[in-house]
Amino acid sequence: MDRFQVTILGCGSAKPTTLHYPSSQIVNFRERLFMIDCGEGAQVQLMRYGFNVNHLTDIMISHMHGDHVLGLPGLVSTLDLTNRDPANTLRVHVPSSGVQIITEMLDFFTKYKSFEVKILPLLPGNNTIFESDNLKVVSFPLYHGVECYGFKFIEGPRPRKLLGDMLEFHHVPYYLRNSIKAGADFMKPDGTVIPNAHLTTEGSPSASYAYCSDTRFDPRVVSAVKGIDVIYHEATYLDDCRVKARERGHSTALDAATVAREAQAKKLVIGHYSKRYKDSQPLLDEAMSVFPDSVAANEGLTIDLRRL
Amino acid sequence: MDRFQVTILGCGSAKPTTLHYPSSQIVNFRERLFMIDCGEGAQVQLMRYGFNVNHLTDIMISHMHGDHVLGLPGLVSTLDLTNRDPANTLRVHVPSSGVQIITEMLDFFTKYKSFEVKILPLLPGNNTIFESDNLKVVSFPLYHGVECYGFKFIEGPRPRKLLGDMLEFHHVPYYLRNSIKAGADFMKPDGTVIPNAHLTTEGSPSASYAYCSDTRFDPRVVSAVKGIDVIYHEATYLDDCRVKARERGHSTALDAATVAREAQAKKLVIGHYSKRYKDSQPLLDEAMSVFPDSVAANEGLTIDLRRL
Repeated sequence: MDRFQVTILGCGSAKPTTLHYPSSQIVNFRERLFMIDCGEGAQVQLMRYGFNVNHLTDIMISHMHGDHVLGLPGLVSTLDLTNRDPANTLRVHVPSSGVQIITEMLDFFTKYKSFEVKILPLLPGNNTIFESDNLKVVSFPLYHGVECYGFKFIEGPRPRKLLGDMLEFHHVPYYLRNSIKAGADFMKPDGTVIPNAHLTTEGSPSASYAYCSDTRFDPRVVSAVKGIDVIYHEATYLDDCRVKARERGHSTALDAATVAREAQAKKLVIGHYSKRYKDSQPLLDEAMSVFPDSVAANEGLTIDLRRL
Repeated sequence: MDRFQVTILGCGSAKPTTLHYPSSQIVNFRERLFMIDCGEGAQVQLMRYGFNVNHLTDIMISHMHGDHVLGLPGLVSTLDLTNRDPANTLRVHVPSSGVQIITEMLDFFTKYKSFEVKILPLLPGNNTIFESDNLKVVSFPLYHGVECYGFKFIEGPRPRKLLGDMLEFHHVPYYLRNSIKAGADFMKPDGTVIPNAHLTTEGSPSASYAYCSDTRFDPRVVSAVKGIDVIYHEATYLDDCRVKARERGHSTALDAATVAREAQAKKLVIGHYSKRYKDSQPLLDEAMSVFPDSVAANEGLTIDLRRL
């Protein structure tokens, strides 16, 4: 399946509520699953929304506050009780300041160690933490008063679209279709070369996604996510609490919308709501006043990054 | 309030499900709250059932498997964000083998350290871990393949019941009532002594409660909980899985009921259900075939230990 989508597992903030789970989400790129943050209960949410945990290859922890990481030891110890392929290494990316405690926790609570868990430190600056032909995942700094990272998922060029009639006309054999999708010309048996542009049209546009939580408003975040299609940005407070937001290294819904507008995003998803808001509508209204294409995260919300 | 009751916050087992939270429960003794085990999500459950977290004074961890302890750092860090009285020390009783990792986790994730957390090791044998005039809490060994403890709550003698007519007849002043409830005689102004037995009748019977999870069946558990009124006992499996139960240091519903019968309990509460059971009824049926006064735990179930 050629999916590229994000599913919210939790969008609450530090103080727990019965309305939301703490931060966690899944980016599904062609059935490879990346988890961003892993608050308490993330493992139950993964199960609730039907994800195949064997496809989970990378977990990225934005920062070492409990509501973003305390579901990790439970999730890893549960994976250890499943029939995960021993060769299916789990990569856990954590802020360098959290490597020691995470290593100790996972060592203690993972009983069988039936597969390898690689704990990889996130480091200051913009760093590529995953790269394949089709996808690049980059970490970048956020501004939350502690070592904290955002993540962006940038899809590579998409395959060109085949022109069926032209392939038939030139008798292009089936086994060459993938190379032609990738841009190759076709050489006929008589040596004539049919340029790729005669056989294909441009592929669909590539998609991209960025996660920005937790952070206060900072123009450097705008630069980091410039041109990204869909931005998830924390909106812990309404703008009437902007002083408190700044003090605590958080953003308001207005801040989140300003980042999306300045970065020229196509869509904004707000989340990480303070416990004080029983309803996300006022936060969404505030965001939409600045950036109309905003949606409010909720547990189970899935955004197809290819259909905006 | 003269309450003595237990509320189930979670009664699932190691593999998470969307049906149950992992192990946790609250014993409320006269508005002092004891938490037994603290699986992921225990803090949300505490809130869901309306407990006042400022009354939580003791948390006891039976053993160091994730489904019994991984809610602890999140709960303590949340308490740290509330206005807990700095003098209101939280006592956390953990198996001696878990003291180091728990200390490290609580140190790391508790940011403000606004009140003291005392981490107290549980030790082999029967040990009194809390004692007041009215209540004694004793830890005792369970048999789960790792260092593991059960807990029993034994109420002291209850106040005698005043005979209003007799108090009036002998002109007993109001301020002496509590000492007479506690068993004192009354000396009249003329020196005549009225024996307590003329002024009171026996108080209500004292109540008691024991928690046995996780453990395989073992006669030593029966001895430890002999005479306890209400026993919570794990019943991870049905008896057709007894071989697996033994191997994994767990009990069947039949085992749990046998413990209750041999210990001459008044009531058995079963819980810690394997993920394989979508419904606890077959487990309850099996327990009731041996010990009819059994109930199946469920999140939110409260048992009044004074009214059985």
